[in-house]
Parts: sequence; structure tokens; C-alpha cells
Amino acid sequence: MTERPSVVILGAGFGGLTAARSLAKSANVTLIDRHNYQTFLPLLYQVSTAGLAADHIAHPIRASLRGTPAQFRMGSPIAINHAQKSVMLDSGEEFSFDHLIIAMGSATADFGIDGVKEHALGMKSIQEALLIRGEIMRRFEDLCRFNDQTRLGISVVGGGPTGVEMAGAIAELIRGPLKGDQPTASAQMDIRIIEAGPRLLPSFSQSLSNRTARDLERLGVDVILNKAVQSVAPRKITFTNGEVIGSEITIWAAGVQGEPAIERLNLPISRKRIDCLDTLQVKGHPHIWAIGDNAGAVDAKGNLYPMVAPVAMQQARHVAKQIQALSAGKALTPFKYRDKGSMATIGRHKAVVEVGPFKMAGIPAWYAWLWLHLIYLLGGRNKIGTMADWTWNYLTYDRGNRHIMDGN
Amino acid sequence: MTERPSVVILGAGFGGLTAARSLAKSANVTLIDRHNYQTFLPLLYQVSTAGLAADHIAHPIRASLRGTPAQFRMGSPIAINHAQKSVMLDSGEEFSFDHLIIAMGSATADFGIDGVKEHALGMKSIQEALLIRGEIMRRFEDLCRFNDQTRLGISVVGGGPTGVEMAGAIAELIRGPLKGDQPTASAQMDIRIIEAGPRLLPSFSQSLSNRTARDLERLGVDVILNKAVQSVAPRKITFTNGEVIGSEITIWAAGVQGEPAIERLNLPISRKRIDCLDTLQVKGHPHIWAIGDNAGAVDAKGNLYPMVAPVAMQQARHVAKQIQALSAGKALTPFKYRDKGSMATIGRHKAVVEVGPFKMAGIPAWYAWLWLHLIYLLGGRNKIGTMADWTWNYLTYDRGNRHIMDGN
Repeated sequence: MTERPSVVILGAGFGGLTAARSLAKSANVTLIDRHNYQTFLPLLYQVSTAGLAADHIAHPIRASLRGTPAQFRMGSPIAINHAQKSVMLDSGEEFSFDHLIIAMGSATADFGIDGVKEHALGMKSIQEALLIRGEIMRRFEDLCRFNDQTRLGISVVGGGPTGVEMAGAIAELIRGPLKGDQPTASAQMDIRIIEAGPRLLPSFSQSLSNRTARDLERLGVDVILNKAVQSVAPRKITFTNGEVIGSEITIWAAGVQGEPAIERLNLPISRKRIDCLDTLQVKGHPHIWAIGDNAGAVDAKGNLYPMVAPVAMQQARHVAKQIQALSAGKALTPFKYRDKGSMATIGRHKAVVEVGPFKMAGIPAWYAWLWLHLIYLLGGRNKIGTMADWTWNYLTYDRGNRHIMDGN
Repeated sequence: MTERPSVVILGAGFGGLTAARSLAKSANVTLIDRHNYQTFLPLLYQVSTAGLAADHIAHPIRASLRGTPAQFRMGSPIAINHAQKSVMLDSGEEFSFDHLIIAMGSATADFGIDGVKEHALGMKSIQEALLIRGEIMRRFEDLCRFNDQTRLGISVVGGGPTGVEMAGAIAELIRGPLKGDQPTASAQMDIRIIEAGPRLLPSFSQSLSNRTARDLERLGVDVILNKAVQSVAPRKITFTNGEVIGSEITIWAAGVQGEPAIERLNLPISRKRIDCLDTLQVKGHPHIWAIGDNAGAVDAKGNLYPMVAPVAMQQARHVAKQIQALSAGKALTPFKYRDKGSMATIGRHKAVVEVGPFKMAGIPAWYAWLWLHLIYLLGGRNKIGTMADWTWNYLTYDRGNRHIMDGN
């Protein structure tokens, strides 16, 4: 081991980027991603619903590394040469490493449900967000054209924070700006959120779940609980109880799983996550580390950590410290997650926050959500642009980005 | 003729939108466009060069018509039924009219030059702008990867205002933010502007042409004059004199011509423009009017009007007045163009403005350009967003939107 180890990081999401910045001074870092920008996924649903410009939730990775000696390379890993300790990229390049950090994030999980891949819209990339925005606006223009009694069903499947935020934002788009554009057509659009379990936001306490359902219903969202999707087909969803509903647009927010590309890396994998020790070292590979959505580490109760940004960022900082400890000949420590709570926004002045026993809802929760997301958004330009868009939306009740711009 | 005539307007660019707003109170207006947004084409090159977010130069057409009784319909015309006085759309809908205004704008003109359509990038839509941005950034990442002496040629063909603005903005992107990202790779990128005639900005006076060439050269742009393109192929351009240069990215700014879709309308066309009287009535069709890039009207010297926004907007207002005059039983008047001058921006503090005998260059011209574009940009949100992006770019010398987001 050299004093200044070579560290290759696969993936420039919350985890990978945090690791790169934490290690930039003490190691020769190469950060690899298939995109040249990081996507701020927590605000993706606002691009889908015309609240934010697509470019404002993206940030060039090279700009994030500006001022550090860390290197960036655009590409996708296709294999690890474990004997040589190197990673091969799709470009044919090979990078040797002393340490390798796997931070490739996650992809939409269809749980093997028929038709999800083909007929539901995912929520994992800016392209997908623009597709959702384009589909909503295109169907709206269709309704304006038909000038009849046609109903248009928009279904958000999944009652977690992602689904709740999406359903609320679609309802606000339709009941606000689209109503102003053409009141008859907007009134023909039905929005519903579908959850297989007995309540929305199952990771929150019951009282906040109830509050969320009530807030969504006030926005005009039909809350459907205790119904699991059996299959998705064009224009319809079939439930496991045999019931069928019309759904022109089906948005899949029911879950994510580890990015399938990790399977190319010849590492031990179970439940789509890489098996690792409590230090986050991959089992049998002490110089390879898994973080965030890729880490198969478990908490004291034996549960996998949730696939959220705070876990990825805390694990990134933990791994950076372990690599520094190894360079200094010190002992490794196990990762401990410090849960800072969860939050979800439902609409204007409507949000829920839960931190341990502390609960908050309504206007203060909404402001807390807003500022926290603005603080974590990368880049001054994005902060200014997003603040400008939000202020505009707030004051005018407008969503100015309702352009059909998905290339279809 | 009813007192309140039905007016159908094809195209929601500068001309069509101005006509719709001018006629909204005195006629039953239906505005038709294939997009649900207007594109602010004069700033398209800033999207191509990562200076502005794509969404900021688009504006929903329905938002532009808000508060007026004018109707919008998304679709493309496929035929005019002249006997019935109606327009058929690709959706199958048919709209009857008392008056029809053709305002469908223009498309890239390749002048029959071999390979332009296949191997050069156009500058007529947001999708094309994102393609140019994506290509520049992708090739830049390639250079970072190669780590050798490869040179990368970026050619802007056409020395008019569009080409000049594009070449200057690319140079500033490469010599500024990309130099900060990776100085070696950015130094390997060669930018040149190619003009078949003897000088840039041929519609301006000689002194401003000289100034523009000097300013571009200072930004590192190679100014190539008196060379006409014979053909474009992958990675190269061949001139009519037999000379060949390497060009990995060829951007076509050499000219536009009337949108080919006007040919479906069974109207008299010459030189890709619709033949019309000096009132802007189409010859032989007194209830059909052509404006902007589609109008074949000529000035006192017999020249076609330039394909620029001020012509389209003045003609739109003229036609609106003629239709109102007809409703009131008054006489028609011929269109007279009031030339308000031309301007082009080259880079930070570098622009040229010419209004009749009055000439201006440098910092005052640059500020004049900036404010004029901000004023004409549609929508308060776009003005705020663009001002925020510009202020950020100005203060930081950054171009924050350098994301490869073209779907390729």
C-alpha cells in the first residue's frame, strides 16, 4: 500500500461524489460515471410536473470536482480484474486501484410484475422525468382536442415518499395551471395513488400517514390502499383481486433495486446488493467497498439500510475514513447509521417530517423540506435557478415548464 | 363575412403569436402549432453552448394566450380545402375559417449541398440545440479519455449573425469553463467559422464586419472567408476549391428556407415562399395571408424581406389590421417594413449593432443586445431565469448547463 493510494469510485451519485470529495486530498481519486452530470433525484418529480427546469437538477460532475485533484472519467464499468486489481470500462480503458468503491445506485424495481417495464413510466432519470412531463401534457392536449366526456386516468403506483410527492405535484399541476389553460379538459383528468399496503408512507408514524392521505385527497387525489398491482397494460392496470381500472398514464414509484450493472463485477451479491462486512468492505475483497444502494450492510436488527441519500453520504464518509485509516496503519471501525429522519412534501404548505419521536406537518414542515433541499442541491447556479422557479411558482401558482420536450 | 370573423393561424412563432394576440379581441382566433410551446430562437445558441437552460427559451403557447378568448390546438396542417375554406390537421380535425394566416416559419436550408442533412447539426429547435451541446461535451470527454495529441475540429458554417453568435459562444465555452474542467483537452479543440463570401455579417457595414472578425479571432476562432462548402462528410468538410479540412462537429448556420410543410397547402409558391400581394394576401386567395418567413412579399427594390422576427411581427400586426379593416368595410393598405436595425453578439462585452447610419460596437452594443433580448423573451419566469443564468455566467465565467442530455 502506498501512502497515497489510488482510489477508483464507480458512480457519481450522492455516495460516489461524497466519497470523491472526502478522499480527494488523501488519495489519487478517479470518479467514473456514465453521465457527465449528477442528477439531484429528490427533485426529479418537480421536473416531471413542470415546476423546475430539467437543467436545474443536474450539475456537471467536473464542476463538483473543481479545485480538487480528483479525476473524472465518463464511462461504464464492464468488469473487474480481481487479480490485477483493475476496472475495465466500456471505452476499453482500464484503471488500476488500491481501493475500489462501488456506488452505482439503483434502478426501478418491477418486482417481476407483468408490463411494468413496457407500459409504466419510471422515475430514475431526467429523460424519464421529461417523458412523464411530455405524456401528461400530450394527453392534456388530446383532451382539449376531443372535446367530449373522455376521462383520463393518471396512476402513481407506490405510496412511499416518491409516490406521495409525485401524486401531489401532478394534482397541483392539473388543478392549477392546466385548469387555467383549459378548465374542461383539466377536470377530466383523474389522479390516484395506489399502495399495496394499508397506509401511505409506511415508514412514517400512523398519524402522519393519515394526514398525508387527507392532504392528498384535498388536492383531488384518489387514495387507493390495500390493492396490489397484478399487471400493467396499455391504458389499464389489473389488481391481484381481479379488479381492473383504466390508466392512460401509469407512473411506477413502487420501489427501486440495486443497479443491475453491479452483476458484471464478479462480486458476491444477494437481494441485488453486494454482500459486505460492517466496515462496508465487500466480503472476500478487503480493498473493495460498497456504499449506498449497492451496500448489503445491515443495521443492528439485521435490516438492510434504506436506499436514501443520507445513508449513501454517511457510508461514503465512513469508507473514506477507513481508507485513510488503512493508509495510516490504524484499525477499521464498523459503519453506524445516524438516522436524521424522513420527510415528504405533498403540495403547497403541505409536508410531513419525522425525526425519531418528533413529528411535524403542514406549513413549518413544508418550509423545512424546501430549505433542506435547496441546501443540498449542487451548484450555486442551480440553487439560484431553483429558488427563482420556486418563488415564481409560489407567487403565481404557475408551472412554467409545461413543454412537451421529450423527443417523442 | 360575419362581424366577428373566424381566423385560423398556422404556426405560433413570432408572427403567428403576434397575430393571435392582435386579433384575439376582434375575431374568433384558433392558433395551431405542432409544439405546445414557442421557442425563442434568437437565444437557441445559448442553449447549445450551456449558457441557458433549455426550458428557459421555451414558453407554453397556452400561457401566452391566457386571458384572451383565442383557442390553441396542437397539430400540423396537412391540407387546405379551398372550396370549403377549411384547414385539415394531422389529427383529422378540420377548422373552417373566414381568414387563414400562414406563419409556419422556416427550416434549415442545405442548398442541395451533399451530406448537410446527414452529417451537419441544424439550429432550428431545442432538440437540435441539445444535440449540439451533447456533441460538444461528448467529444470533450473523448479528448479527456484519449490523453494524446488528437485535435478536434468544430466548424460553424455561415457568417451571418447566427453563425457569428454560435462561434463566439462555443469559443467562450471552450476557453472558459472547459479549460477549467480540463485544460489540456480544451486546448485541443479548434473552432472555426466558415463563410463563402468575402466577409462576416454581410448585411452589416464593412467596419462592423472587420470588428466582428477581429473579436472572434481574439476569442480563438479561426475565421475562414471566401470558401464555399462542397460537401459535408463524417469528420470532414470539402470546399469547392478541392481543399479538405477535418471537422468532427459541423454546425450548419448557412441559411434557412420556408418550412417545407407549406407545400402541402396548395398555394402558389416560388423560392420556398408563398406568392402574395403587397397587402400580404396570397395571390388568388384574398382570405389567406402569408407572414414572416413564409411571405413572398418584396420591398420597394423587389427584394424578399429578411427572415427575422421583426419582419414577422410587423407583418402579423399588418395582417391583423387588414382583417379588421375588411370587417369594417374599409380599404386595404400595403405592408411597409420599418427596419429597426440588426445586432449580433460575439461574446462577453462584444457585440455589434447597426441601425441605418448608426453603428455601435463593444460594451454598449453588448448591453443593448442583452436588454433587448430579455425584453422580447416570453414569460416572467423565463425573464427571471434567464437573467439569473446570465448574471451567474457573467460573474463566475461559468456555463453551468454543460450536461449531455440529448438522449443519445
